[in-house]
Amino acid sequence: MKHIAILGASGSIGTQALDIIASNPNVFRLVSCSIGKNIDYARKIVQVFEPELLCMQYEADAQTLEHEFRNKKTEFTFGDQGLVDVVSLSSVDLVLNSVIGSVGLLPTLAAINEGKQIALANKETLVSAGHIVMEAARKNNVEILPVDSEHAAIFQCLQSAKSSAELKRLHITASGGSFRDLSYSELKDVTVDMALKHPNWSMGSKITIDSATMMNKGLEVIEAHWLFDVGYSQIETIIHRESIIHSLVEFVDGSMLAQLGVSDMHIPIQYMLSYPERLPMPATMDLSLIELGALHFEAVDIKKYPCFKLALDAGKIGGSMPTVLNAANEIAVNAFLENKIKFIEISKIVEQTMLAHDVISNPQLDDILEIDHQARTFVEHILL
Amino acid sequence: MKHIAILGASGSIGTQALDIIASNPNVFRLVSCSIGKNIDYARKIVQVFEPELLCMQYEADAQTLEHEFRNKKTEFTFGDQGLVDVVSLSSVDLVLNSVIGSVGLLPTLAAINEGKQIALANKETLVSAGHIVMEAARKNNVEILPVDSEHAAIFQCLQSAKSSAELKRLHITASGGSFRDLSYSELKDVTVDMALKHPNWSMGSKITIDSATMMNKGLEVIEAHWLFDVGYSQIETIIHRESIIHSLVEFVDGSMLAQLGVSDMHIPIQYMLSYPERLPMPATMDLSLIELGALHFEAVDIKKYPCFKLALDAGKIGGSMPTVLNAANEIAVNAFLENKIKFIEISKIVEQTMLAHDVISNPQLDDILEIDHQARTFVEHILL
Repeated sequence: MKHIAILGASGSIGTQALDIIASNPNVFRLVSCSIGKNIDYARKIVQVFEPELLCMQYEADAQTLEHEFRNKKTEFTFGDQGLVDVVSLSSVDLVLNSVIGSVGLLPTLAAINEGKQIALANKETLVSAGHIVMEAARKNNVEILPVDSEHAAIFQCLQSAKSSAELKRLHITASGGSFRDLSYSELKDVTVDMALKHPNWSMGSKITIDSATMMNKGLEVIEAHWLFDVGYSQIETIIHRESIIHSLVEFVDGSMLAQLGVSDMHIPIQYMLSYPERLPMPATMDLSLIELGALHFEAVDIKKYPCFKLALDAGKIGGSMPTVLNAANEIAVNAFLENKIKFIEISKIVEQTMLAHDVISNPQLDDILEIDHQARTFVEHILL
Repeated sequence: MKHIAILGASGSIGTQALDIIASNPNVFRLVSCSIGKNIDYARKIVQVFEPELLCMQYEADAQTLEHEFRNKKTEFTFGDQGLVDVVSLSSVDLVLNSVIGSVGLLPTLAAINEGKQIALANKETLVSAGHIVMEAARKNNVEILPVDSEHAAIFQCLQSAKSSAELKRLHITASGGSFRDLSYSELKDVTVDMALKHPNWSMGSKITIDSATMMNKGLEVIEAHWLFDVGYSQIETIIHRESIIHSLVEFVDGSMLAQLGVSDMHIPIQYMLSYPERLPMPATMDLSLIELGALHFEAVDIKKYPCFKLALDAGKIGGSMPTVLNAANEIAVNAFLENKIKFIEISKIVEQTMLAHDVISNPQLDDILEIDHQARTFVEHILL
């Protein structure tokens, strides 16, 4: 029995992880979790899973639940310290960190320091603090299990590598997002509804927009750099419309391994929860290459995806720049989702924020949180 | 330094293996090898590699070489016992068995019993004697390393599997061969020259014809059954025109791993020689999915490939039937290559020979050699 803590249990990744836990009651047990503001979903989790500890964003919600469920064994907590408590319970074996934003950073480090396995779906952990997190993981002999389909694919392909010296390049695949068939000039008038129609994946709205700008892919390149300890010159991105090959690893002998599957996050989430074993999935998850007929590949048109280029630049600059990129992007995407700015303004705002930033070369956790905050404030000022 | 013995050093696989040994003089040393009748090639090998022992098919050739090279340290031998001597030298670490025909059987077993690593490119070893060879390999704790690109692909993908219980299906890819774009009725008048034009691979003529009939793929399914210990219902074959994905493994969670590479046998041969490590290949061997643009998949049209169906039948019947299939096919393909029969008669002759055979359920080595001989004689009578 593996005892699981989930940060961000009501999000897209979190709810799919709960499906998997519910489907495999003899394998997994939900010990603790965090939820933002969705108190109804929190009630449901307590009724179905009876975790030991549940963390809400706000104290008032935690108190409401405490009162309602005073006859249940679940305890309630809240806020940033609550997140750390959720992952630190002694009974927790594996922490799935699927919380959004830099709030995911501190509990990840707390979990690593406690020697818990980490299934990671929080981008900020590696984008902003890859140098700190990977160093802590090495020290505590903790393996970081990446939940993102692309990194999960690379992780699976690398299981067959005998040493990192065999690795030549990583090839991260990208669907190209909602606007892959539009030219850059056609992007001027796209709406939020259009941007939210992802061709292959059903995901949260923030990541669907990041997919349309390919900021998401850029952040994945930065994450891959940290996760797999490879230089940026060894990471290629390739447009693969069908999102069936989730990524590839190229070895020094020219041989490549690829991981394939239907576009359903249940598969990589379950793999990381059950790792190093694999659990069966229903046959409805089987992939038929014959039905599919063909898989296509093309180069990334970098002019069409300025956010992607900004992310690669930020990754190569390093230090505090990826934090600024990510924070600025988050506020800009929210502004787009709220119809406050146009789609093509997202990259312009990110670029402007990056240009205004003086890079710190080896930021510590406090620096990162401060810079993250400053970048958000900077963008909010631009948007006024 | 790994010490290598090669059976069939002058064939397509053998010569490519020699390229690899010559390119990696600090990693590999050719200790011994066998050659059929090509005495000029034998001379070249002695001059370049100075092996300890070289085996020719005929005694007269061995004596000629013995005389010519009496000042060199290479010794010469011949015939079936010579093959066994080549693999049994105490200095040999790995035997590459790339000899054609049932003559490859005895030396494979001899090498296994001596505890040598086996890189296997001799089809008969597994098609005819899979039950004997795999049992011997288990007893002697010898891993069979398959050189065929399809099996090498599956072998590489399975390196990441934690247990065989995780395996759901194997998907073996097939180019469809020289006549994949012809209908069955158009196959009536095809010539040897047309058959020898393989769309993707440069190989020996026997295997190129077997590729056009898809007998080759059927034999590969039988080999996969033995190599990876999976039932026939777990082995799918899929037409993949580009021969870039060399095969795939499907796991119980719906996740698939694929191995990809350019269509050049140097890659799988080198991998098996250097296994468990990977050695660099020149960048000319790199695969560009972007240049390729697309990979295609379609179902096998079983009506067009009667030899493929016969091979699957023979595999499922088991016992001595695969030996009969393979022996009859070899003689029939030779007859086609010598313009004695038409292309579509190959399958008819194989079927006729299979129908005339009374299956032995658990044939021993003597039975196999006898049945192989009988089947050949039977086909030669048909052809008179």
